[in-house]
Amino acid sequence: MKKLINDPQRVVPESLRGFGLAHPEHVVVHEDPLFVSRAGGAVKGKVGLVSGGGSGHEPLHAGYVGAGMLDAAVPGAMFTSPTPEPILEATKAADGGAGVLHIVKNYTGDVLNFETAAELAEAEDITVKAVVVNDDVAVEDSLYTAGRRGVAGTVLVEKIAGAAAERGDDLDAVVAVAEKVIKNVRSMGVALTACTVPHAGKPSFDLADDEIEIGIGIHGEPGRHKIAMAGADEITERLLEPVLEDLKIGSGEKVLLFVNGMGGTPLSELYLVYNHAHDVLAGKGLEVTRSLVGNYITSLEMQGASITVLRLDEELTQLWDAPVNTPALRRGV
Amino acid sequence: MKKLINDPQRVVPESLRGFGLAHPEHVVVHEDPLFVSRAGGAVKGKVGLVSGGGSGHEPLHAGYVGAGMLDAAVPGAMFTSPTPEPILEATKAADGGAGVLHIVKNYTGDVLNFETAAELAEAEDITVKAVVVNDDVAVEDSLYTAGRRGVAGTVLVEKIAGAAAERGDDLDAVVAVAEKVIKNVRSMGVALTACTVPHAGKPSFDLADDEIEIGIGIHGEPGRHKIAMAGADEITERLLEPVLEDLKIGSGEKVLLFVNGMGGTPLSELYLVYNHAHDVLAGKGLEVTRSLVGNYITSLEMQGASITVLRLDEELTQLWDAPVNTPALRRGV
Repeated sequence: MKKLINDPQRVVPESLRGFGLAHPEHVVVHEDPLFVSRAGGAVKGKVGLVSGGGSGHEPLHAGYVGAGMLDAAVPGAMFTSPTPEPILEATKAADGGAGVLHIVKNYTGDVLNFETAAELAEAEDITVKAVVVNDDVAVEDSLYTAGRRGVAGTVLVEKIAGAAAERGDDLDAVVAVAEKVIKNVRSMGVALTACTVPHAGKPSFDLADDEIEIGIGIHGEPGRHKIAMAGADEITERLLEPVLEDLKIGSGEKVLLFVNGMGGTPLSELYLVYNHAHDVLAGKGLEVTRSLVGNYITSLEMQGASITVLRLDEELTQLWDAPVNTPALRRGV
Repeated sequence: MKKLINDPQRVVPESLRGFGLAHPEHVVVHEDPLFVSRAGGAVKGKVGLVSGGGSGHEPLHAGYVGAGMLDAAVPGAMFTSPTPEPILEATKAADGGAGVLHIVKNYTGDVLNFETAAELAEAEDITVKAVVVNDDVAVEDSLYTAGRRGVAGTVLVEKIAGAAAERGDDLDAVVAVAEKVIKNVRSMGVALTACTVPHAGKPSFDLADDEIEIGIGIHGEPGRHKIAMAGADEITERLLEPVLEDLKIGSGEKVLLFVNGMGGTPLSELYLVYNHAHDVLAGKGLEVTRSLVGNYITSLEMQGASITVLRLDEELTQLWDAPVNTPALRRGV
């Protein structure tokens, strides 16, 4: 295992300390319990947004703390849910008096721990609601979930719900916007190589030199099937077809097309995938009006990509376009 | 070789086509000859900025085309200098009547082809000046250079000179700003793994499972020495010390600290390197007032990182902070 680390057990806190030093204008990193909140604290009267989950998916979630997106993020250990305590502290830090929304990826540990934290926060008179993101069409149940996994669609939920909170929507309205995104977003990914969790010291799963895994999870959980290495256009189609089928999307609709890198794939390959995905969508009469390409939710150094399609209407488009000012996503500010 | 590509010979044009489709508000991709220019064309009365070089370092350079940075970029084949013809066309596209600056990384092929293109442009009555970036302190001469290589400092030259052009500086003044950055920026990198150029089909160089290369070039050119795999703090010190020594920088000075990923390294590891680099600088009495962390100049899927330090004064800080609106770097707009 070759990694730029010191102690496998200290990767998350040492990395987050550096993150805090690099972005003092955006975030404050709290060390015990470990969570990240906005520099300047909660915004009075604004609905607070909190997300979190296992580390190893950077820039998700801490990279999205800032104006127009999250108020706090809770990084767990690598690929491991954060416990209720830091989620509670993050919820308190995010509370501006208008309630707090928990944005939770659908993994059993995350769901349970966020629920517990929400109960603890309610006991301290903070109103908490939660949405669960489950955009991955690859498998119905999986290693760590009942139901579908939450993957790259989470970034879009955080951005768009964040914009709704920033414009002054109340908690129910922000929940409604988040649910609207969840209802209209689908994703599927592929792994070319496995990744290695530092404290495990060996690859999370096996892939032969000539095979890839279609429908991979962001922790290397099994997908739909392993296939022989194929060309990018064929892989793109294999990811996009189930996404479109599940979205039941038709000619004339507008979409956001998001090609996400798993961490170890060159940006040039992501754009190459985007190129063909755009053509496939155009061929079906869909109009790609917004796009996102890059490493936004990763699996350490895994090589691979995911494709996400979000059906857009006017409201979602406006909220997507709204200013955002975070370490990992900045626009219009 | 596992890559998200179709034909190894078509990676660059297919990827750039996708890049153009994803960023129509920022860029226009010209296919023959291949170059990228700002959407909306040259800005009348503004000095035009053009950079370019071999592909495989994305988002460099095309990702930096847009307001506040480059006016055009010329991607060559993978790790191969672009020929004079597309450089000439990019220069013409960037010319707003106030002259054009070529920002060239110090590689023999790049320097020669940009020189030839400049002569051709002068014959068409476009005034061209060039600066050569040579920030890599690892080796004096190398596989592809006489003198030092140009690496991550190039991103800072493009950003800061771009801001000078945007505020209305004339060509000589933009050259002076670019030279000031070049004089005050130094870098050094490390490779944990080699990368594979698609049309070569095998890794560019060999590294054993337990060794890393200190002072690696962005094309996998030999660095200073191979050493046994070490902890991140030790590697950070080995990169930072020659950088600081060469900069002759002393206590009380302000710097921008830039930790760049080579393409295949998780963001968490880059922040972990940043964490210790920040401490080392603080320990020497230097003040880190600006920072940049991420994959800004890469070597395909190479695992590794580079550390860049730029000595800041008030002018460079202001120009660094100026708005920029490109696909890969966005701030203040």
